[in-house]
Amino acid sequence: MSAQNPDAQHVTDQHADAQSITVIGLGQMGSALAGAFLAAGHRTTVWNRTPGKADALVARGAVRAASVAEAVAASELVVVCVLDHPAVRGLLAPVTGSLRGRVLVNLTSGSPEQARAEAEWAAEHGIGYLDGAVMTTPPGVGDSASMVLYSGSPELLAAHRATLAVLGDPVDLGADAGLASLYDAGLLGLMWSVFGGWLHATALAGADGVPARDFTAVATRWLKTVSWFMTGYAEQIDEGRYPGADATIDVQVAAIGHLLHAGEARGVDNRLPELHLDLMRAAVEAGHGGDSYARIIENFRM
Amino acid sequence: MSAQNPDAQHVTDQHADAQSITVIGLGQMGSALAGAFLAAGHRTTVWNRTPGKADALVARGAVRAASVAEAVAASELVVVCVLDHPAVRGLLAPVTGSLRGRVLVNLTSGSPEQARAEAEWAAEHGIGYLDGAVMTTPPGVGDSASMVLYSGSPELLAAHRATLAVLGDPVDLGADAGLASLYDAGLLGLMWSVFGGWLHATALAGADGVPARDFTAVATRWLKTVSWFMTGYAEQIDEGRYPGADATIDVQVAAIGHLLHAGEARGVDNRLPELHLDLMRAAVEAGHGGDSYARIIENFRM
Ligand SMILES: NC(=O)c1ccc[n+]([C@@H]2O[C@H](COP(=O)([O-])OP(=O)(O)OC[C@H]3O[C@@H](n4cnc5c(N)ncnc54)[C@H](OP(=O)(O)O)[C@@H]3O)[C@@H](O)[C@H]2O)c1
Ligand SMILES: NC(=O)c1ccc[n+]([C@@H]2O[C@H](COP(=O)([O-])OP(=O)(O)OC[C@H]3O[C@@H](n4cnc5c(N)ncnc54)[C@H](OP(=O)(O)O)[C@@H]3O)[C@@H](O)[C@H]2O)c1
Repeated sequence: MSAQNPDAQHVTDQHADAQSITVIGLGQMGSALAGAFLAAGHRTTVWNRTPGKADALVARGAVRAASVAEAVAASELVVVCVLDHPAVRGLLAPVTGSLRGRVLVNLTSGSPEQARAEAEWAAEHGIGYLDGAVMTTPPGVGDSASMVLYSGSPELLAAHRATLAVLGDPVDLGADAGLASLYDAGLLGLMWSVFGGWLHATALAGADGVPARDFTAVATRWLKTVSWFMTGYAEQIDEGRYPGADATIDVQVAAIGHLLHAGEARGVDNRLPELHLDLMRAAVEAGHGGDSYARIIENFRM
Repeated sequence: MSAQNPDAQHVTDQHADAQSITVIGLGQMGSALAGAFLAAGHRTTVWNRTPGKADALVARGAVRAASVAEAVAASELVVVCVLDHPAVRGLLAPVTGSLRGRVLVNLTSGSPEQARAEAEWAAEHGIGYLDGAVMTTPPGVGDSASMVLYSGSPELLAAHRATLAVLGDPVDLGADAGLASLYDAGLLGLMWSVFGGWLHATALAGADGVPARDFTAVATRWLKTVSWFMTGYAEQIDEGRYPGADATIDVQVAAIGHLLHAGEARGVDNRLPELHLDLMRAAVEAGHGGDSYARIIENFRM
């Protein structure tokens, strides 16, 4: 396919499971993805708009494609990770014909609607399509503790699971191509909320001389307990019944007073806990004070 | 001490490590605490303002005290868990003299300032004092995965650690009696933030047909990755330096657009992510867009 790096081909041919993989887009994330495929011994063909970004990978054994068309032609599995969906479309529309019969794995962030449109376009042109979301930063790529979410085709994911697993643990979200992006957005939202609550609390503790490190060691342990609450509440949400049992919204309204007071006393911005109190109060006013916190999902649904 | 339940005494005397423990306050939490001590084979003396709440525990072998004074006299270790600090003071002030030389473990929720005042009062009267916070609901009491935070006296905690460990894993926060309450408030704030971000995301996913259970299984896994980010950021906060490296605030501002758009498209209340965006924008406007998210602690500190 390419004579640019015969040594690399020689080396990877010795791997029983070695595959040919193409990575298009070598920004921070694309470079990490290509690096993980290389590290696993796969014959990795790379292309980037700014060609210089391929140099380090080529030095490690990657095959440099001179064009997107050449990159696509090199492998059955084509991974694309660029800035956004319009950039993906701009690169791939001209090579639609060459993509036919291959599998396109789009790890570019976007909206669920964009992912669904991409999947439709791929289906119309006989291109296998998996949409994905890498749930870590580039240094976490290649770690099996990192999740990479996939949606669009459980069959294609099953067929290429072992190859894709070198990027991080593949999580199958099913046939709706939009779900990887939807989960991605939701999980990032959860992350910002965790960060917000944690930074507020760390600021409180810091005001009384507690190092962030000390508070955070307890906070990360606490997240395991909170995860356990969430798991129970998720069942309530699916059942549409929210028994308060041992921890009602009324009890939380009483408890949040301590937090607001501690924040005021220490000059910490309380907008975040005030929003939580607003949400709780709306549930109480709707007559749900005796229910569990999970009932508050109804306030989010508006 | 009490002849009301000689059988219980007989049983517990057979335990080599059996201790005498008093629990004052038998609401939902106090009953769970007393139950855990009983289950561990300790001679457990109980008192509650409304005496009937002791019945179930007495049936399991607890010793019923006829008064707070009798309850205090029964054990070197006196655990109190009632509604709030004024209730604690109301119960214990009349028996100050009998408490001298004993260890009071106050697991009643309150403010750091209240806990510090309680510790001072105890010190003035020669009473050993540990302030604590039970970081679970009553059914989680007795599970070693549950944390019980203690502050006020690392020495007393060390001396009674094995006994207290039957309630949950004891976490030593040091000599400042106010810290268990401060951590408690902060950790609950973190919990409400996690719940908020998770409910927002679960509402988004639910709008596209994803069961809460499915999204939550991925979300709880994701919290492990987020914990790993927090641990790194905590070191940045303690050092007062916030290198952005692979995940700057600028990048998050770009990414949160997908979440806000997904929320709008699905009619989900976006006040929570909008607040996060506000905080991020304030950091960007202050010239910190290239820094990591940890820099946002400065916005909380005001
Ligand atoms: N970095 C992370 O932590 C992270 C985590 C999860 C997901 N992601 C997602 O991964 C994707 C890539 O992110 P990144 O961190 O690699 O960003 P990046 O370092 O800024 O790289 C952007 C990449 O997109 C290419 N590109 C941009 N516009 C293009 C166009 N019109 N035509 C062709 N190529 C174009 C760039 O090519 P040039 O080199 O020629 O500019 C570069 O390869 C994004 O969708 C991002 O949301 C990133
Ligand atoms: N439940 C939880 O999930 C949980 C979790 C962590 C911490 N806590 C904390 O544990 C403490 C007790 O909570 P709980 O859930 O057990 O509440 P609860 O079921 O409402 O019980 C309240 C207890 O306080 C007693 N009490 C109230 N006012 C009193 C007064 N003036 N004098 C004497 N006794 C009085 C009550 O006695 P009567 O029976 O006579 O009314 C009862 O024993 C609170 O500080 C709470 O914040 C609870």
